Amino acid sequence: MNVSEAVFKRRTIRRYKQQPLEKGLLEILLDAARVAPCGGNMQHIRYSVVSGGELLKKVFAETMWGAWVKPARSPIFGKTSPAAFIVLSARSGLPVTVHADAGAAIQSMYLAATELGLGCCWIGAFNRTVLSTILAVPQDMELLYLLAVGYPDEAPLREDIGIEQSSKYYLDEADVLHVPKYKREAIVTWL
Amino acid sequence: MNVSEAVFKRRTIRRYKQQPLEKGLLEILLDAARVAPCGGNMQHIRYSVVSGGELLKKVFAETMWGAWVKPARSPIFGKTSPAAFIVLSARSGLPVTVHADAGAAIQSMYLAATELGLGCCWIGAFNRTVLSTILAVPQDMELLYLLAVGYPDEAPLREDIGIEQSSKYYLDEADVLHVPKYKREAIVTWL
Repeated sequence: MNVSEAVFKRRTIRRYKQQPLEKGLLEILLDAARVAPCGGNMQHIRYSVVSGGELLKKVFAETMWGAWVKPARSPIFGKTSPAAFIVLSARSGLPVTVHADAGAAIQSMYLAATELGLGCCWIGAFNRTVLSTILAVPQDMELLYLLAVGYPDEAPLREDIGIEQSSKYYLDEADVLHVPKYKREAIVTWL
Repeated sequence: MNVSEAVFKRRTIRRYKQQPLEKGLLEILLDAARVAPCGGNMQHIRYSVVSGGELLKKVFAETMWGAWVKPARSPIFGKTSPAAFIVLSARSGLPVTVHADAGAAIQSMYLAATELGLGCCWIGAFNRTVLSTILAVPQDMELLYLLAVGYPDEAPLREDIGIEQSSKYYLDEADVLHVPKYKREAIVTWL
C-alpha cells in the first residue's frame, strides 16, 4: 500500500477481531519503529511485546480507551480486545524529546500495520504504577506509551472540519466512529 | 511507494539540491501531518511554512544541524540548503504528549516525502527565542520543531548494529553518511 493511501486509511481501532497475530507481523511493526527518526539518533526507546496468555489480560485490565466514546469503545477482553500490546519505555529523566521519538516510532508502526490490514490504538492512559510492576519495568526506566495491535473489527470514518468545529470523535446512530480532522487551511499558515 | 519500503528508505537528509519545491508537494506533506494520530484527537499542532525569500534565509540561520557530523553536514545557504521549512508549534504549557503528537506528524511527513522523492531533516536544535521573533509566534504559543524539506543531494546508508555499538552517525572517507540503527533483537523483549 502506498504511503499516500496509508496515511489517510490509518485510523485508530478500538474494536478487534479475536484472531491471533503471527509473530512475523509484530516483527514488521517493530522494524518500522526501530528505523524511525529520533533525536540525535540516540534510540532511547525499548520495546516489550505482550501477545497472549494471562499477561495480556493483566495488561489490558490497566488500560483506558477512547475518552470521548466511553464505554462504547472500551474493548471487552476476549470479545473485542487487541491480540497484542507493544510497550514503549525509556530511561527515566530523559528530555521531553523522547516523547517525540515515541510518537515517530508509533506512527511508523501505525502505517506499517495499516499496510498489513492490522489496526492499532495508541494508548497514553494506563495505570503506570501497576503496569510497571506487572511488566517488571526496571527502576531506572519508565513506561511511555502502549500500542494495542490486532485485526480491526470496526471501520472509523475521517471527516474534515473547520477550526471552529469540535475535534471530539463520536459514534453515530449506526455505531460507526467518526473522527474529525482539521482541514489543512485551518491549521496551516503560509509565510 | 509501499509503506514497508518507505520506512526503510526514509533517511534524514542534510544536503539538498537547489531546486524549488512546488507548493502542491508541501501540501501533500501537510495533509499527511494533519491526519496523523494524536492524543485525544485534540490536534494541538499548528503548521507554518517558510518556502523562500529572505525569510527562508533568516530561519535557516537559526538552525543547527547534525551534531555528530558538524560542520561537514551543516548545509550552506544557497548551495546545499533546504527549499522549505515546515514549522510545528502549539499552545504553551500543554502536557509532554504534544511532543509525541509532533513526532507522529513528523514521521507521517517524512514517509510522505520519501514517497515523493523528497528529503527531510527533523530539527530540534534551533534558536527558539530569535526564531519566535522572526516568525512572529504569538505569546501563548511555542515552537516545537522544524522540518527541513527539499530534494536530497546525499544518500545516507543505514546499518544495523548490536546494543553494545555506538549509535552515532558518521561520515566515511567517501563522504557518505552512515546511520547505525539497533537490530530488533537488541531493543525488543518478548514477554
